[in-house]
Amino acid sequence: MKESDRSVFEELTPSLRILMGPGPSNVHPRVLRAMSTPLVGHLDPDFLRIMSEVQALLRQLFKTDNPMTIPMSGTGSAGMETCFCNLLERGDRVLVCVNGLFGERMCDVAGRLGADVSRVEMEWGKPIEPKTVENALKAGKVKIVAIVHAETSTGVRQPLEEISRIAKEHGALFLVDTVTSLAGCNVDVDAWDIDACYSGTQKCLSCPPGLSPVTFSDKAMNALRSRKHKVSSWYLDLSMIERYWGEERFYHHTAPISMIYALREALRLIMEEGLEARFERHRLNHLALAAGLAALEIDFLVDEPYRLPMLNAVKIPDGVNDLNVRKYLLQKFGIELGGGLGPLKGKIWRIGLMGHSSTKQNVVLFLTALNSAVAAEGMKVAPGAAAAAAMEAYSQHDR
Amino acid sequence: MKESDRSVFEELTPSLRILMGPGPSNVHPRVLRAMSTPLVGHLDPDFLRIMSEVQALLRQLFKTDNPMTIPMSGTGSAGMETCFCNLLERGDRVLVCVNGLFGERMCDVAGRLGADVSRVEMEWGKPIEPKTVENALKAGKVKIVAIVHAETSTGVRQPLEEISRIAKEHGALFLVDTVTSLAGCNVDVDAWDIDACYSGTQKCLSCPPGLSPVTFSDKAMNALRSRKHKVSSWYLDLSMIERYWGEERFYHHTAPISMIYALREALRLIMEEGLEARFERHRLNHLALAAGLAALEIDFLVDEPYRLPMLNAVKIPDGVNDLNVRKYLLQKFGIELGGGLGPLKGKIWRIGLMGHSSTKQNVVLFLTALNSAVAAEGMKVAPGAAAAAAMEAYSQHDR
Repeated sequence: MKESDRSVFEELTPSLRILMGPGPSNVHPRVLRAMSTPLVGHLDPDFLRIMSEVQALLRQLFKTDNPMTIPMSGTGSAGMETCFCNLLERGDRVLVCVNGLFGERMCDVAGRLGADVSRVEMEWGKPIEPKTVENALKAGKVKIVAIVHAETSTGVRQPLEEISRIAKEHGALFLVDTVTSLAGCNVDVDAWDIDACYSGTQKCLSCPPGLSPVTFSDKAMNALRSRKHKVSSWYLDLSMIERYWGEERFYHHTAPISMIYALREALRLIMEEGLEARFERHRLNHLALAAGLAALEIDFLVDEPYRLPMLNAVKIPDGVNDLNVRKYLLQKFGIELGGGLGPLKGKIWRIGLMGHSSTKQNVVLFLTALNSAVAAEGMKVAPGAAAAAAMEAYSQHDR
Repeated sequence: MKESDRSVFEELTPSLRILMGPGPSNVHPRVLRAMSTPLVGHLDPDFLRIMSEVQALLRQLFKTDNPMTIPMSGTGSAGMETCFCNLLERGDRVLVCVNGLFGERMCDVAGRLGADVSRVEMEWGKPIEPKTVENALKAGKVKIVAIVHAETSTGVRQPLEEISRIAKEHGALFLVDTVTSLAGCNVDVDAWDIDACYSGTQKCLSCPPGLSPVTFSDKAMNALRSRKHKVSSWYLDLSMIERYWGEERFYHHTAPISMIYALREALRLIMEEGLEARFERHRLNHLALAAGLAALEIDFLVDEPYRLPMLNAVKIPDGVNDLNVRKYLLQKFGIELGGGLGPLKGKIWRIGLMGHSSTKQNVVLFLTALNSAVAAEGMKVAPGAAAAAAMEAYSQHDR
């Protein structure tokens, strides 16, 4: 290499951000510190112990006894692919519930694997109705019913228990995306009879992106073991990965050690707070945010019973420019706000209150900044009205 | 969750290790510090700039102008799968060179994709002979010739230029594994006419495991664009990932931000040292290690011209217990030494001198520890002989 080709970049100095988009969320300093711990090898006795601890903590978080509960070495979408590619073979039938981007992605992932994909659809922003799943299953047996618990593209919280019951009545495995819900609201894998469940680390777990916690029921593991052909992905094949995370400790691929250090600390923080207290914190900050938004006459996309506390999708008011407001928040306050995806692009904002980002401080600051941003766009709003409404909501709920 | 179920684990306190196995290697403190930088979003203007910088640095390291040069969001094996799954369709023919575990893995990965896999084989510990590749290609046209540059399971450095020429003469794409070689010895993607190349971050780049740098030539990208069917893996589909890393910045999956911070700093350290100086450091420490091992009458598995400087595979002396020695090194010195894999299990040790682990200090300490460990196993060796021989080698080469 010629000396002239050597472009040495400056020190890494990204801006400080308050992350209130659809993820990643802000990461607790203890997680960053744990992540920067010097490494041991992926077969070191110390690391094997850490792996077992992470599994035990993940089981508590998923509320499951499934032995196969591990963090996959990829982001949430790798977890989605893990669930489908381990359970589906070419020609297998799968029913996917689609009411947002991630349901669409499930169809794409399953279709690439050669599966026969049927869809149950609902308008973006509304939950899937159990009746439509039941009707679709009457038309023919499927191996898997797949659904998204928390649609990050729309902010819909999908009730799961009835659909699980229907899937089981029709002899199907129940596959659920909990990328955005896990650690922010109740996810009860065993009680809801979920067979394959995946999540991501960068939402309500408040750990950097890079790992995807997954859990498979014994029924799902039996389905994996009775496959006719090998899993198409070597990297995501749980029948091999199980040998590394299980008692055998047989080398598969080099685990992302620093990320697992980070996840362990994020899980420790979650258990120190307590799951119920954490869910209540997410709910309370959501209610205060909603009160502030109401003061600005900004409406939610989703009907009240189905709103996610950690992902608030709201309609951009008429006459207000999407990009102007997002730039205002980013440049004047360092706040990241999410835009809409697909058919909702330019029509909604997605306000994340996830994990370590879900705080009273962030809610009040965000509302103050948004109040000012929409005023700059010509909306007639009283300065400080939104934050005042949120403070009033806090004082009511804190009683 | 019942209070009794809450098992809160202690603070993360893994042992301090000197990593001299087959990877991960020790990580420079500057990389750990960069990795623990608070996060920005994956579509933040600051992060988009960082992505472009990482791409520019990776191109320098791979010695390529390929626009498609990016870190994949998975470990080295995900990089292997990326190369095969983007370029192969069901029924495509591929020729894989197999002289170790990672050549075997290539066959497994390609076979799962429905490809028609032929093999050229050589005993573990010896390089593939170009003539055998030529003969295999005479038997029928293939889409890809795939080979491992640095076999981590055996310590063989595979000369590539002649095999590349042969592959091209027969109209095949040339796919190369540089997981262990990249940043430790010369890898020249453009000069060697490599079409698809992948590596890992946890070897000579001395960055934590979790990313796989890959580069695709324009010819490989054209092959991807003329596929009949979608890539079987959504997560690894470069035709979509290209839209996020390219000018469009279209969201695909959430990038592993902290890992990319770490990679950027690791690449900065590499460019500050200079590639040639870095290769020379790896070579010199290898030669000193070899001198020390010779003093203990411990033999290399691989003939001298084909030895890798960063991965030294040596035969375990008769009468010496593999596990005893590795335990001695780990427990008394905190040194991780690698064992053998597959047919070489219990027969060889793999001594890594990769990236930040390749230092004079580590060589001298390791030899002192090994000297003592094999003496404890009953070998008649003079105390300190190995380290003395290494010091003598350093003084000769430092002249």
